[in-house]
Amino acid sequence: MNGRIDLNADLGEGFGPWRMGDDAGLLDIVTSANVACGFHAGDPDIMVETAAAARARGVAIGAHPGFWDLRGFGRLRIQDSPRRIERDIAYQIGAFQACAALAGARVTHVKAHGALANLSNEEDAVAEALARAVRGVDRDLILVVMPGLPAERAGERAGLRLAREIYADRGYAADGTLLPRAMPGAVIHDAEAAAARVARMVGEGAVFAADGRAFSVAIDTVCVHGDNPAAMVMARAVRTALEAAGLSLKPFAVT
Amino acid sequence: MNGRIDLNADLGEGFGPWRMGDDAGLLDIVTSANVACGFHAGDPDIMVETAAAARARGVAIGAHPGFWDLRGFGRLRIQDSPRRIERDIAYQIGAFQACAALAGARVTHVKAHGALANLSNEEDAVAEALARAVRGVDRDLILVVMPGLPAERAGERAGLRLAREIYADRGYAADGTLLPRAMPGAVIHDAEAAAARVARMVGEGAVFAADGRAFSVAIDTVCVHGDNPAAMVMARAVRTALEAAGLSLKPFAVT
Amino acid sequence: MNGRIDLNADLGEGFGPWRMGDDAGLLDIVTSANVACGFHAGDPDIMVETAAAARARGVAIGAHPGFWDLRGFGRLRIQDSPRRIERDIAYQIGAFQACAALAGARVTHVKAHGALANLSNEEDAVAEALARAVRGVDRDLILVVMPGLPAERAGERAGLRLAREIYADRGYAADGTLLPRAMPGAVIHDAEAAAARVARMVGEGAVFAADGRAFSVAIDTVCVHGDNPAAMVMARAVRTALEAAGLSLKPFAVT
Amino acid sequence: MNGRIDLNADLGEGFGPWRMGDDAGLLDIVTSANVACGFHAGDPDIMVETAAAARARGVAIGAHPGFWDLRGFGRLRIQDSPRRIERDIAYQIGAFQACAALAGARVTHVKAHGALANLSNEEDAVAEALARAVRGVDRDLILVVMPGLPAERAGERAGLRLAREIYADRGYAADGTLLPRAMPGAVIHDAEAAAARVARMVGEGAVFAADGRAFSVAIDTVCVHGDNPAAMVMARAVRTALEAAGLSLKPFAVT
Repeated sequence: MNGRIDLNADLGEGFGPWRMGDDAGLLDIVTSANVACGFHAGDPDIMVETAAAARARGVAIGAHPGFWDLRGFGRLRIQDSPRRIERDIAYQIGAFQACAALAGARVTHVKAHGALANLSNEEDAVAEALARAVRGVDRDLILVVMPGLPAERAGERAGLRLAREIYADRGYAADGTLLPRAMPGAVIHDAEAAAARVARMVGEGAVFAADGRAFSVAIDTVCVHGDNPAAMVMARAVRTALEAAGLSLKPFAVT
Repeated sequence: MNGRIDLNADLGEGFGPWRMGDDAGLLDIVTSANVACGFHAGDPDIMVETAAAARARGVAIGAHPGFWDLRGFGRLRIQDSPRRIERDIAYQIGAFQACAALAGARVTHVKAHGALANLSNEEDAVAEALARAVRGVDRDLILVVMPGLPAERAGERAGLRLAREIYADRGYAADGTLLPRAMPGAVIHDAEAAAARVARMVGEGAVFAADGRAFSVAIDTVCVHGDNPAAMVMARAVRTALEAAGLSLKPFAVT
Repeated sequence: MNGRIDLNADLGEGFGPWRMGDDAGLLDIVTSANVACGFHAGDPDIMVETAAAARARGVAIGAHPGFWDLRGFGRLRIQDSPRRIERDIAYQIGAFQACAALAGARVTHVKAHGALANLSNEEDAVAEALARAVRGVDRDLILVVMPGLPAERAGERAGLRLAREIYADRGYAADGTLLPRAMPGAVIHDAEAAAARVARMVGEGAVFAADGRAFSVAIDTVCVHGDNPAAMVMARAVRTALEAAGLSLKPFAVT
Repeated sequence: MNGRIDLNADLGEGFGPWRMGDDAGLLDIVTSANVACGFHAGDPDIMVETAAAARARGVAIGAHPGFWDLRGFGRLRIQDSPRRIERDIAYQIGAFQACAALAGARVTHVKAHGALANLSNEEDAVAEALARAVRGVDRDLILVVMPGLPAERAGERAGLRLAREIYADRGYAADGTLLPRAMPGAVIHDAEAAAARVARMVGEGAVFAADGRAFSVAIDTVCVHGDNPAAMVMARAVRTALEAAGLSLKPFAVT
């Protein structure tokens, strides 16, 4: 995938009367959108509207399943069985496929949300539940993963197509995990610095760890956020830096 | 469809730790199962298990969407917009398709539940929302309808395959609606009488109204219940009577 | 209650990660706050925080119960039994009393929300369920009602203390109901005009109907909104006009 | 409290259309009932009915708060903050107090449910959140605790009245915790053996650990279950054994 990159963000994170983030603004920046599926955010109305808005701008859509935890926005760690986690994920993917169909759109990928994503990067059993759910629903769905962690390995073992993702605003440990937020360098607040760094990582095909080392990975997509004005500034800066580096921005799902 | 008939019932109507009805018993009697999709009952775990159990016995499965009303079991009338109703139905169908896929099963039909079903038999706008949802998700899904009422007409206009259903234990008014439960003859409690009547209706291809008139309809399926021991007795009696009448019991979805 | 008036608004209408309205701004304007209790909005965390913030500014707090309809924000009409409605309201009042206690505050009043409020102004059975719930939980709670409608009569019959409320931005029919939003004059958008009118209504102790007639009522409180910037402008204008008319702004619950 | 003992069980563990356990049967056996408050089970309708049924038989009632986890029945471990846990507990206590008031009953105690109870017996921060919630809502409420564990200590520090509880059907480790269910002796299935043992423990004022040691505690109440026929048999056997030992069965809340 030399010369091209995808830019992804989470969208459709409202519920009922509530909204979160600048979805319209993000749709002008990203090439792939991860859409909440009703368990931690999102409802059928929002899901259809988000799929339709993405389709209208050529943005690819993916299911963004999370724990059944609306109040906690899917951020609370819940100790459930891999079997039930697999089924919860499948349910959410199918629900979004149907909502997307109403909007004339097709779901191209799956990316886990919040505590579910964290657990899938820590525990093999959860990572395998995620991979089984995706494969069980539709083998053609692309699973978005962080390079070097359990979800990537589970996806590979399941024979899934993978999109490897890096974060624009987060520091990395040498093992490929994100630095804990309390550590220095864990969160990059300077939009220009973050944008420049991420463009270099994509260009070189490597993740730069906080200790100065770099490890080679095939980077398919860069994750940005849009839940506050500073995040939108960074998202725009990242897009600008990637384009300035000569990269072509396209959904990873387009081949 | 001369010489054959389907027998359907609602299954998977538990939630979390709770169960309702004798699902295992019903699976030995019916040929099609309508499975709750999480809005008024059902959760991903129950949905996958129900799909797997149905598949193991050759019972066809359908999505059984209802209002987002877990506490009221989808029986409360909620005045929502047709647009949101359409999207809620689509969401539930897709969710069950994915859960069925995990069980190696395929969803063949859709039947509305409770207050949603009632409204789809009373209001054209709700009936059309139901038909749009089914067609939007998958044109090959069969919509189960009561003959002569708005949902049937909406399904016909949408070009959907329909399965026309009669109730084994309910009396009919001359316009094809069910008699209100408070009226004499509204509910037939005698299992043998109900079974004999329904076998004659299927055999003659006609609904017998309470006023003695009969109107011809193509009957594809008979609905029975399993939520209490008496209901199970009637379900068995209906099956026995249909078989005694020389009818072949097969899922309507099988051609 | 000559010479004094209360100004009330709905607060704490977020849920989990979501927020709605300018609660901090409203707390500088109103003298009573109606706090969502978890059924249509609000959660224990938000309820305690809202009670604490109100207490810190001397704003009285009331329970603002609604239908169990988080996604529809309590605006969907749900046909439930008066018995269950009574119990749902009691549950919410008690829940907020406990949350208020954690904040060192005391709940002084109850005001129904959304579709529940509408039904309590249309149907005697719902109005009586509301009054029974309030009296059953705590006879000292004040019930906020619109003058001349079923909830007021039910509250009187139940022997409850009542606070009679008018809306700053809505036109009235001659029977005391609000004009339907589609009618001309139903919603007053001009903040100064609305503020001047409401100050005159309070001063004269009369509701001015759209047909020019006025009917005398004891007005205890004026309702304002804060869910958008224009609403905040009007809320401030109303307060200014009431003060300019020589009225003293105090919670109706303070005697 | 020599010569008397309380017998408690969890009741009202249905939701909406679903029921769990033999509440009517248990009310003839126990002297205190712990009633689910809507977060893991229970709804306002069930809560009022359960309070009324308990009152009619002279059974004391307590709030039985759990995690906001209806689908998991409050058994899933959720990593939430002590602050939010405190507020969730307070909300549930207040809600039940109001529902009890509608039934003319008064809430005498609080006992944590499921994963919340487990965490309050393992983590001081959760135990203190529980104690703060009880004290914050009503200092006169009695907190039911297991002797020797964090919740007991937190309750003592908070100055709460405590009721110390033992389980009829569970084996104890030497530190006062229950033996993990996978261990031999963890669950006592023989009703007569369990009843005889628990009557001796109450009579001697001591918990008998699996290793043969006994440690002295003031035992105020014995917990039994009613969620299946075998549990009901044991509950009856326990009551019979306690009475045969000359103990007077009375709610601990009655002085």
